[in-house]
Amino acid sequence: MDLRIVFLGTSAATPTDERGLSSIAIARGNEILLFDAGEGMQRNFVRSSLRMNSKMKVFITHMHADHSLGILGLLQTLSLNGRTLPIDIYGEPRLAEFIKYSTRLIGFGLSFDVNLHSIEGEGLLAREDDYVVTCCEADHNVTAYSFCLTELERPGIFDIRRAIQLGIPEGKLYKQLQSGMDIVVNGRMVRSSDVVGPCRPGRKIGISGDTRPTEKLSKFFENCDLLIFESTYAEELRHKAIENFHSTAAEAAKLANQSGARKLVLTHFSTRYRQNKQLLEEARLIHENVDDAHDLKVIHLPYRQ
Amino acid sequence: MDLRIVFLGTSAATPTDERGLSSIAIARGNEILLFDAGEGMQRNFVRSSLRMNSKMKVFITHMHADHSLGILGLLQTLSLNGRTLPIDIYGEPRLAEFIKYSTRLIGFGLSFDVNLHSIEGEGLLAREDDYVVTCCEADHNVTAYSFCLTELERPGIFDIRRAIQLGIPEGKLYKQLQSGMDIVVNGRMVRSSDVVGPCRPGRKIGISGDTRPTEKLSKFFENCDLLIFESTYAEELRHKAIENFHSTAAEAAKLANQSGARKLVLTHFSTRYRQNKQLLEEARLIHENVDDAHDLKVIHLPYRQ
Repeated sequence: MDLRIVFLGTSAATPTDERGLSSIAIARGNEILLFDAGEGMQRNFVRSSLRMNSKMKVFITHMHADHSLGILGLLQTLSLNGRTLPIDIYGEPRLAEFIKYSTRLIGFGLSFDVNLHSIEGEGLLAREDDYVVTCCEADHNVTAYSFCLTELERPGIFDIRRAIQLGIPEGKLYKQLQSGMDIVVNGRMVRSSDVVGPCRPGRKIGISGDTRPTEKLSKFFENCDLLIFESTYAEELRHKAIENFHSTAAEAAKLANQSGARKLVLTHFSTRYRQNKQLLEEARLIHENVDDAHDLKVIHLPYRQ
Repeated sequence: MDLRIVFLGTSAATPTDERGLSSIAIARGNEILLFDAGEGMQRNFVRSSLRMNSKMKVFITHMHADHSLGILGLLQTLSLNGRTLPIDIYGEPRLAEFIKYSTRLIGFGLSFDVNLHSIEGEGLLAREDDYVVTCCEADHNVTAYSFCLTELERPGIFDIRRAIQLGIPEGKLYKQLQSGMDIVVNGRMVRSSDVVGPCRPGRKIGISGDTRPTEKLSKFFENCDLLIFESTYAEELRHKAIENFHSTAAEAAKLANQSGARKLVLTHFSTRYRQNKQLLEEARLIHENVDDAHDLKVIHLPYRQ
């Protein structure tokens, strides 16, 4: 299944000429999963190729304005574009309150249903047939969460030539073998593993939101194919990172190493950095596969080989 | 006094690739007057040369999301940029409620005071030494206002050569004459009008917000130097303009003619118009001085000659 990450906003706290406020879209098959909705993120949503009437879930890491305010404008614009599918929104309890209150006060009149889910603790947030989204407490100066999108294992590859060799008739028995059942054909046992390869891992993507690096997060992000981690500061401002409950690029890289993340993408840059050269350099000294996000950057994430 | 208009958002309802949501700044001397704050307008505020810590008043025409939501992000960004001066915000009562509730819920912690003023009816909203801002009911599908910024008359030009000829000693008497008082010098009456020219008119700028054209508005906007009027549609969609309580470009031009506006600037364009050629042409058939707004367009408005 095609999976691409589209960065809709990559600036910390305030927007710049080139960077909007935090928002990341994962377009996976026909569904969009949005992580954070900083004010004005709908502008890059409109500019991107993301579709207004896709199945959609929105996860908000925390209630700071630069991560949450854009949800209202997004809902309004989706509605004005005739969205009909319901939308599921996940965040700490104040998010639901904010959305309910504001849409009522301003009189939104949305064209679709909004299902509000309050995050009350860590663990499973959303489950579909082939993936789950889970959350873990982050270490910020307000209640904040990090998220993982984890695809479930896919069945192994079915070896049709082998199945034909073994004289298995096409149809129901193929299905049984593929689902892991052993069968008997012509009085002979055929094990699923005779014709079906080993299960293939799904992809795992981690999204930090605003946080200090923690042991807990490095476990939560274990084995990510792609880890998107905030790197508000360069190493020389680590004291500011500590003071403001953010991370440096080097700290993000260190955590990515600890958790065994294959690829690290830095985002959420302080407006003092017009270019990210320094941050990238510092992170690349530590982790071998680091990239930096910019608004409307797209990353296609293939399955692990 | 230098006065320039900066368009911070010129799209109707939803943003496009090139146009943000409604917002107009008037930078007058050291003060900024903002009219509407559509979501994401802070982005163009940051891009423009407008200063974060200027004296500032904000006027919101109505509570539709594309005109009001951006106020929260603007306040947040002004605060993160260290603003210290208070800010005055004017809008219908729900605006004050929305700002108070949201800033409390999200825990903004602003670095400056916000003075919320509820518009309860038409008339004077704000008065300074040399200008007033007034409002008039617009004709939209929710409570909505149009605004005028009207500069007070400036004193006439003081003819120093004539004053010297008349033997008037420099100082206090000059001031008295300039303020309109007649004086007696060497036993001879000198009238103010002998040395001071006629009062010079200030500038008047009208801002429609979302509205149908009305008789009342054409009176309210009488004699504007610059009228900024919404023109959501071209004439062929006048039925939509009526249905949605908006105006066509031609209707805006007709109202500008009726009110004797010297210059008309069209804004608030439906996203169906990638270019405004048709709207401009239709308006220019009716009014001789019509221009169209685009994001970050700047108009310097000199005094009338």
